[in-house]
Amino acid sequence: MADSAMTVRYAVVVTIGVFLLKSCSGEETDIKLDKKAQLLHRLDSLNLLLYTFLLILTVLTIWTFKHRRLRFLHETGLAVIYGLIVGAIIRYGFTNSSTIVHMPVVPEPDGSHYNQSVPPDTLWLRFPESKGDGTTKNKTFAYSFRGEIYKRDNEIDLKATFDPEIFFNIILPPIIFHAGYSLKRKYFFRNLGAILTYALIGTTISSFVIGALMYTFIQLIPHLASSFTFLDTLYFGALISPTDPLTIISIFNDLHVDVNLYALVFGESVLNDAVAIVLSGSIQNYAERYQSGSGGFETWAFFQALGDFIRIFSLSLFIGATMGCVTALLTKFTRVRDFPLLESALFVLMSYSTFLIAEASDLTGVVAVLFCGICQAHYTYNNLSVDSRQRTKQLFELLNFLAENFIFSYIGVSMFTFPKHHFDPGFIFAGFFCALLGRAVNVYPLSFLLNLGRNPKIPSNYQHMLFCAGLRGAMSFALAIRNTVSDARQAMLTTTSLIVILTVILQGGATTQFLSWFNIPVGVDEEVEVLSYNGVRSGGSLSMGGSTSKTNEKALLARIWGNFDTHYMKPLLTHSRPTLLDTLPVCCGPLARILTTTQQMTQDNVARRVDSDSDLCLEDRDTDRRRTSIQPLGTVTGEVSPGQQPLHTRVALPGLIGRHL
Amino acid sequence: MADSAMTVRYAVVVTIGVFLLKSCSGEETDIKLDKKAQLLHRLDSLNLLLYTFLLILTVLTIWTFKHRRLRFLHETGLAVIYGLIVGAIIRYGFTNSSTIVHMPVVPEPDGSHYNQSVPPDTLWLRFPESKGDGTTKNKTFAYSFRGEIYKRDNEIDLKATFDPEIFFNIILPPIIFHAGYSLKRKYFFRNLGAILTYALIGTTISSFVIGALMYTFIQLIPHLASSFTFLDTLYFGALISPTDPLTIISIFNDLHVDVNLYALVFGESVLNDAVAIVLSGSIQNYAERYQSGSGGFETWAFFQALGDFIRIFSLSLFIGATMGCVTALLTKFTRVRDFPLLESALFVLMSYSTFLIAEASDLTGVVAVLFCGICQAHYTYNNLSVDSRQRTKQLFELLNFLAENFIFSYIGVSMFTFPKHHFDPGFIFAGFFCALLGRAVNVYPLSFLLNLGRNPKIPSNYQHMLFCAGLRGAMSFALAIRNTVSDARQAMLTTTSLIVILTVILQGGATTQFLSWFNIPVGVDEEVEVLSYNGVRSGGSLSMGGSTSKTNEKALLARIWGNFDTHYMKPLLTHSRPTLLDTLPVCCGPLARILTTTQQMTQDNVARRVDSDSDLCLEDRDTDRRRTSIQPLGTVTGEVSPGQQPLHTRVALPGLIGRHL
Repeated sequence: MADSAMTVRYAVVVTIGVFLLKSCSGEETDIKLDKKAQLLHRLDSLNLLLYTFLLILTVLTIWTFKHRRLRFLHETGLAVIYGLIVGAIIRYGFTNSSTIVHMPVVPEPDGSHYNQSVPPDTLWLRFPESKGDGTTKNKTFAYSFRGEIYKRDNEIDLKATFDPEIFFNIILPPIIFHAGYSLKRKYFFRNLGAILTYALIGTTISSFVIGALMYTFIQLIPHLASSFTFLDTLYFGALISPTDPLTIISIFNDLHVDVNLYALVFGESVLNDAVAIVLSGSIQNYAERYQSGSGGFETWAFFQALGDFIRIFSLSLFIGATMGCVTALLTKFTRVRDFPLLESALFVLMSYSTFLIAEASDLTGVVAVLFCGICQAHYTYNNLSVDSRQRTKQLFELLNFLAENFIFSYIGVSMFTFPKHHFDPGFIFAGFFCALLGRAVNVYPLSFLLNLGRNPKIPSNYQHMLFCAGLRGAMSFALAIRNTVSDARQAMLTTTSLIVILTVILQGGATTQFLSWFNIPVGVDEEVEVLSYNGVRSGGSLSMGGSTSKTNEKALLARIWGNFDTHYMKPLLTHSRPTLLDTLPVCCGPLARILTTTQQMTQDNVARRVDSDSDLCLEDRDTDRRRTSIQPLGTVTGEVSPGQQPLHTRVALPGLIGRHL
Repeated sequence: MADSAMTVRYAVVVTIGVFLLKSCSGEETDIKLDKKAQLLHRLDSLNLLLYTFLLILTVLTIWTFKHRRLRFLHETGLAVIYGLIVGAIIRYGFTNSSTIVHMPVVPEPDGSHYNQSVPPDTLWLRFPESKGDGTTKNKTFAYSFRGEIYKRDNEIDLKATFDPEIFFNIILPPIIFHAGYSLKRKYFFRNLGAILTYALIGTTISSFVIGALMYTFIQLIPHLASSFTFLDTLYFGALISPTDPLTIISIFNDLHVDVNLYALVFGESVLNDAVAIVLSGSIQNYAERYQSGSGGFETWAFFQALGDFIRIFSLSLFIGATMGCVTALLTKFTRVRDFPLLESALFVLMSYSTFLIAEASDLTGVVAVLFCGICQAHYTYNNLSVDSRQRTKQLFELLNFLAENFIFSYIGVSMFTFPKHHFDPGFIFAGFFCALLGRAVNVYPLSFLLNLGRNPKIPSNYQHMLFCAGLRGAMSFALAIRNTVSDARQAMLTTTSLIVILTVILQGGATTQFLSWFNIPVGVDEEVEVLSYNGVRSGGSLSMGGSTSKTNEKALLARIWGNFDTHYMKPLLTHSRPTLLDTLPVCCGPLARILTTTQQMTQDNVARRVDSDSDLCLEDRDTDRRRTSIQPLGTVTGEVSPGQQPLHTRVALPGLIGRHL
């Protein structure tokens, strides 16, 4: 199908090329500009069509794989492979047809007052348009900056690539938001200490280790030594450190892997995306703003960069959480839930504006939207109407699916079509080696340290699995492609793309194998695990997860937060009980009365149990829905949508245990 | 809120401006380019944020209006008004801060082999980058064509406007698809003759009448006479003729207006969008390709353009219908319905690819996607799993809502910020007058002709309502902004924007008033109308709608199509009965067996009744869901989602009759 799209594209290009070359009288300039605009539109359509076909192909192949229960290749791996094939066809199948007409220009002789060190944003070209009567009239056309010129400058190829900003404004937000919105908050908070350690400390360590190692490697390769600074390699370390949750998580979902391992892997990869994006931003700021130019280590500049890191991360978190809470307040105190369509629209718009506010304030939208997603799920979700709950869940699930597969297709295609690749075998080899090592120094030493203080220890097979789950994905690629102005950055992009492609295909495909090698229990439902933990797992050195049945073993951090949340945040932001009238001191009575809704006062305990997610209810429903929506529907819940009948689903689910694998 | 966004934007621009102006050593060019890229990203975010805030504001205000049952202003009218306010603030609140650095250039002296009549696509500028050691190194930067330069060229203003292609690739497809997907097919097909007459013949007549009148007007205004050709005014006629369904339809939905009037207004406005886009394309082609340049009427060229019109319309229709049927076949013969997420993704991707295929083949994507939507609703919908039905309905409803409000906000903002407006009072006045007259020559003469042959006649109050429902909307604006290269086109854009704004605010706001002036029955439920038509409507000169109870009065066209559909299309594309085994001649037995699924053979009649939409069932469910999703949920169906329990909803709905207004 993609092939036929190419043929159409080719035919169109040739046809229009003929049109453009046809000589016309001067007064037809406008009409020809029309034609050119039409051609561009058609190329845009072809370009989008290409990716749409790739996604359709991926969807159909995924279905075949799922239908036949093949597990050696995951959907993201498939998307990458199809992307690679199509990219190769575009690159090598169409050698001619350079329809771009270019003109070398020089500054106007008398306009030489331009003395800045960067090229101007816009060029103004006076172009003579010959009128029909023999006279000419000068029109001025504007040209906007696009970038430095490299060898290949073919219209089609350029068109098959997108502006990197699209990733940060369009593709990443729904993926990251969905990660936050569908996080299993109960297990996430229970393992909060370990997750934060891996994500915050681990990612930083990994970045610095990779950066230092890469720098050492590069000193050994003469032609690279000059073009890379230590900051370049450190930046590479930061962008290659975050792991990708998508592939692993959907396999874990299919196989019903132990929930604590799930929480560790998912929580870590979601948060380390956030850490990596802030870290790489700080490194860039360090290079641009604070360094005085000597190139050596400067204490003052280092602390400024560290301050940046902390400031950006916490402010982004704050914006995300605030917007989530504002949405919760809006949905609690207005009756907008009477109009589900308006409510859903409000929810989507508030969530997207969180991203934009953070980006526009020079903070990190991805971090903001992640924490916004967590807050939306924790508070706002309880205030939504049934219709909106379902609609928002399903909407973001679908958006996430499409965005995720699009980005992986794009990684594949761009491997061949992106004009700024720079293949350097030495750098690529070093990159692979360091990426592996970086993951190891993240997981093993930190697990050792964590186990010293942790009561239910993280067993060694879980550590191996954490190591093997270290695929690189969308975030690494997006960071790498965002900036390709220098040779060093281009070599990083190429290496990052290759690492992403290989880890997604190989590690992603081998996940099932890893799970059985490491004796990780699969087919475990969390419900069952809680109820009959000892019965299900008889063999193996698993000392972890036992805590789930004893709430008093919760981590201190989780306990403090949980108390505050139940007593103040939930009563304020949702319709849950106890109300603020019960929890606030007497002196605040009038305030508490204002902030408590009638609904909150009148509802009974049953309603409360369903609404609240401080206990099991909500998470289980969320989880079930997420799990089952990619499972055969008929086998689990018949024709009943799982979200509609939580109790039914929860009863039905144990029947699934152990069925897969 | 929009105000604060502006402040932030302003601060950011100034800050970065300072950065850019700071003199740096030459080797920092790359870093400065980074900075510039960051600035652009931030401006993009601010721009999107602006519209997101506008939409949030609109949503909250709509809710207030609905909550307080105010009807004098519709949501699209609100979006336009907010847009106008914000546009004015941007235009007049920020006069300084031109951060764009431009450089006038001339062609390279030795590179003067460029001899085409259109400006080149790309300029290449060699820019000296001074190295730290005093030497300089030339880098070549590419600049891409943007357009002719007009007076105002401020970065902020340019950023608050979007590439017009965005409307055609992103905004219009979901709106038009949703129109097709939610069409009440039963009443649509019943009134097919009248709808096609109004849409096809009426829009064409209206375009030519407006074109001719405008041309006459323009001859009276000396300064305009030279810049407009007859083709220009004809193009204006084509783009101002389509009416906008959005505002009127949602008011009709709220008020439960008689279903036949609903079908006439909705069907006509959906189809005349399609006709207008093809018609305007043909006029443009006529000007560019066929006309020999003399400017007079040429019979040969006219017939070529007519051929174009028919070819493009029918091929687009064919592509749309084909892709709809392919999706139906895919969902019928694979078990992809076992995985609702994959199924929904496939549905969305196939629908969007329809649009892209048509656009890439030089046809009209909007027409294709409209008919694709109709086919998806008619066939594919029956094959989908319950989960996917709900998900796709809700998804497109939400997308439609957001896209629709975005485009109206944008019309408001762009009135002030779009740099290519050309205010000409004479043209504007003429435009308003002709738009009104064009609508009148569409509705009244054709209704008279239709009534000659039509058994249930279209009463005069319905005709007045059709006339008053002639708001101009998204399609007119999108066509006008698509091409603004000449003065004539810019004057058209300005006039079109004004007509859209005023009709949406005034006519949209007065719809309720119109309905009561013309004694149009409201609060009528179609179910009831069918069952007890005489009882509900006792007064008034309504001779129409009586046909709904007698199926033998169906139009001939509808009857032929209905038979073919029930006997061949439905059995082939859906799981409905009778199967092809029953309807195909005996000789085709083997083929029929292949095309009949087991499910189709085994299901009983009850299942068939629910699946099929050849009778009442499906349409009613669709309609109910669409109607109720913007109605207070609690009052109609309690906490039960209407789509899940069609029978429940259908029983519950009669309780609504006459409640509103």
